[in-house]
Amino acid sequence: MTDQEHHFGTDHPIGVAVLGMGNVGTEVVRIIQEQAQDLRQRVGAPLMLRGVAVRRADVDRGIDPALLTTDAHALVARDDVDLVVEVMGGIDPARALIGAALTAGKSVVTANKALLADYTGELAAAAEHSRADLYFEAAVAGAIPVVRPLIQSLSGDRVNRVVGIVNGTTNFILSAMDETGADYHATLAEATRLGYAEADPTADVEGFDAAAKAAILASLAFHTRVTAADVYREGISRITSEDLETAAALGCTVKLLAICERVPAGPGEPGSAQGGKDRISVRVYPALIPRKHPLSSVNGAFNAVVVEAENAGRLMFYGQGAGGAPTASAVMGDVVMAARNKFFGGRAPGESVYAELPIAPIGDTPTRYHVNMKVADRTGVLQAVAGEFAKHGVSISTVRQEGQDTGVIESGPEAAAERNHAGPSSTPRRQGARLVVVTHHATESALADTVAALAELESVTSVTSVVRLEGTEE
Amino acid sequence: MTDQEHHFGTDHPIGVAVLGMGNVGTEVVRIIQEQAQDLRQRVGAPLMLRGVAVRRADVDRGIDPALLTTDAHALVARDDVDLVVEVMGGIDPARALIGAALTAGKSVVTANKALLADYTGELAAAAEHSRADLYFEAAVAGAIPVVRPLIQSLSGDRVNRVVGIVNGTTNFILSAMDETGADYHATLAEATRLGYAEADPTADVEGFDAAAKAAILASLAFHTRVTAADVYREGISRITSEDLETAAALGCTVKLLAICERVPAGPGEPGSAQGGKDRISVRVYPALIPRKHPLSSVNGAFNAVVVEAENAGRLMFYGQGAGGAPTASAVMGDVVMAARNKFFGGRAPGESVYAELPIAPIGDTPTRYHVNMKVADRTGVLQAVAGEFAKHGVSISTVRQEGQDTGVIESGPEAAAERNHAGPSSTPRRQGARLVVVTHHATESALADTVAALAELESVTSVTSVVRLEGTEE
Repeated sequence: MTDQEHHFGTDHPIGVAVLGMGNVGTEVVRIIQEQAQDLRQRVGAPLMLRGVAVRRADVDRGIDPALLTTDAHALVARDDVDLVVEVMGGIDPARALIGAALTAGKSVVTANKALLADYTGELAAAAEHSRADLYFEAAVAGAIPVVRPLIQSLSGDRVNRVVGIVNGTTNFILSAMDETGADYHATLAEATRLGYAEADPTADVEGFDAAAKAAILASLAFHTRVTAADVYREGISRITSEDLETAAALGCTVKLLAICERVPAGPGEPGSAQGGKDRISVRVYPALIPRKHPLSSVNGAFNAVVVEAENAGRLMFYGQGAGGAPTASAVMGDVVMAARNKFFGGRAPGESVYAELPIAPIGDTPTRYHVNMKVADRTGVLQAVAGEFAKHGVSISTVRQEGQDTGVIESGPEAAAERNHAGPSSTPRRQGARLVVVTHHATESALADTVAALAELESVTSVTSVVRLEGTEE
Repeated sequence: MTDQEHHFGTDHPIGVAVLGMGNVGTEVVRIIQEQAQDLRQRVGAPLMLRGVAVRRADVDRGIDPALLTTDAHALVARDDVDLVVEVMGGIDPARALIGAALTAGKSVVTANKALLADYTGELAAAAEHSRADLYFEAAVAGAIPVVRPLIQSLSGDRVNRVVGIVNGTTNFILSAMDETGADYHATLAEATRLGYAEADPTADVEGFDAAAKAAILASLAFHTRVTAADVYREGISRITSEDLETAAALGCTVKLLAICERVPAGPGEPGSAQGGKDRISVRVYPALIPRKHPLSSVNGAFNAVVVEAENAGRLMFYGQGAGGAPTASAVMGDVVMAARNKFFGGRAPGESVYAELPIAPIGDTPTRYHVNMKVADRTGVLQAVAGEFAKHGVSISTVRQEGQDTGVIESGPEAAAERNHAGPSSTPRRQGARLVVVTHHATESALADTVAALAELESVTSVTSVVRLEGTEE
């Protein structure tokens, strides 16, 4: 193996091109320049910044203007560029630029989750063909090392579950709603004002960003190619202050979770179409989690990822999930590793998708549910509601009933039976009440059928929200 | 680079020797055998178990007896062994066996913290010379990926601090003492009975195990060779139930911490003998930490490591720090990576010690202290004690005084002044009282001088304990 050492010679620099000079790119450029001596020692050869591709080159960005260019394609194609850092974001032109770099055998470090969630296969094939490196630690959970642990540290284990809070904007909003009791729209406005939400917050609040990260995490955890289209997705825009209030009453808070789960082939399924193979469920939605769950205390713009593996047990990784400097830290770790490979030979592990596990549809995925209803405040309502749950095979764990005006709690069949003495034809005594039902595990489809049936009941005014419950022992 | 791919051909197996078949070795052997198909896909070639070195080969260990050998040296030397997994522990013969494997160009995966803490330099030199790999994720914090994140993920950042709970035995004992109020010896006996402490618990309870891990973490974090002898070490055997009680009264708990810290060169020191270089402080001791600190909720046999880096900010890694299966998970991740390198070419990052930062002596390291005293229960005591602290330049943060019988709390100089009305010659009214002083930051040497002076005071019966306080914002 010694013949492949020192491809470049100890004084031959590794040429680096940076594409994009937003929050992350600015920090990457700063670190390359300020930490040059340390980086040289860690790589074995100097990193030399060849250029930075920007949209407008005539803006003062605090670096030598000769380094700036608007022609990203020409920069990537330069003979003296060995390594390309893509921190511009978006699908185009990032996809073509990364493809061109990899095809030319140049190493690529990217933080682009949206691109990876849809095009890892294409990019990994280009990297494989030319024996180039594709690194992307910064694409998931910012500074938190989670991509490398999944690819490398857990490569000798069997991952069963990855659950993460991987979007800082939504976590900031939900933490603030929980703390202040304010409603969603007011809290979003505040997050925008503070710079925690973008002017168009759709990608964050509707869960697209988290879904892209879930696709990447699931691909790595299960050695299966998972794209954003495979991820079931719900955002947080329908979460109300009432949801957080009823969650609190149950000792829970609400978090937007990215869940990647191995669904073991049941013992009765070996003859099924899937041939007894495990399936995987990948989903993003807001869910109640108990306050004693380790993810419940991850607040504000922080991220955390819990990994459960057969031998390792439960691991948790916690830190800053976004921001220029934290994301640049993850990018630079990849840059040093990619540059070392250029210098010493060796390669990043390529895409591993041999397992090809099928995706379990969301309708098959059992979770627990927290169902919030407005109901007529009269006797017999609880019986009628309980009957619909039972009819659809959804088992109820707890019920909480409040009179809208008085806040009286009526629980269990005894109280309902007592009221029934007034007779079935009794008229409503108040305008309405709230009924909160928490179920045991049920499939999405069974729950959807139950909710549809509940809406038909004369005594149910409306089903105001259905939010899942995760992280309980059951 | 393509010429160095596929050294072995896709059907040529990677031969593996396992040294030791205790808790970890048994799990490693099980995983290699049970997960053969997955491992083959992840490596690119099959892993073939060539043999397992044990002390006694005539014991049924549930595997093919032909695999067992008592001649570890012959096993390592076999031509068909490409990769050696050392999970026997101890310095000898592990040191010679690993040395022989590396010298022969074989990759080594080890979980041996005691060996690494003293001999990484020697082993890394052997690996470097023959271009072999030396991996050791399992040596620190069991299943928790922390070695690889420090070496790779944070290679483009500047680590300022690593603080960890890295010994499960002591954490189990301290957690149990905190919960039950039992004393140290009773709790140690219970831990031994439950299998959380070894028959001779010295390495754990006196902090030797944690110190070895601290040396490894500090070496990686600061790119400086740090050995166990460089680590200041105190164990938990002097921690009393009274310490935990007074800690609780301050909103704290007690944890055995491994602390690796960059001590920046002060602005006034550029002309000093150190030439203005940063220094590093590496130390292991029990310390009070506030209950709101993320490490305070790490209980029982769990481990956690907090890393603070300039750009990444604060990261935390949490999981199972010991046990057969969790440690084997970390070993197997390294095995897959080392085997991939054998197959595809490429090498693990070697030792990085270019920074050569000097070790700051413990006497120079400022921390806060929690000082517990038995004092005469009479007026003027607080003044005398406060005077000694002031005389040695140690600033007091809070004082808590309790009459031994009544539990009366007397705080601050006003209360003392009030009692002083009785005059300086007043006789003791009760047999004794307890005084707890928490200081601001002070050096070890200033504190030691203060404690010596306190012991000379007529009104101080004894200084019953001095425990550091870490993790406060100040």
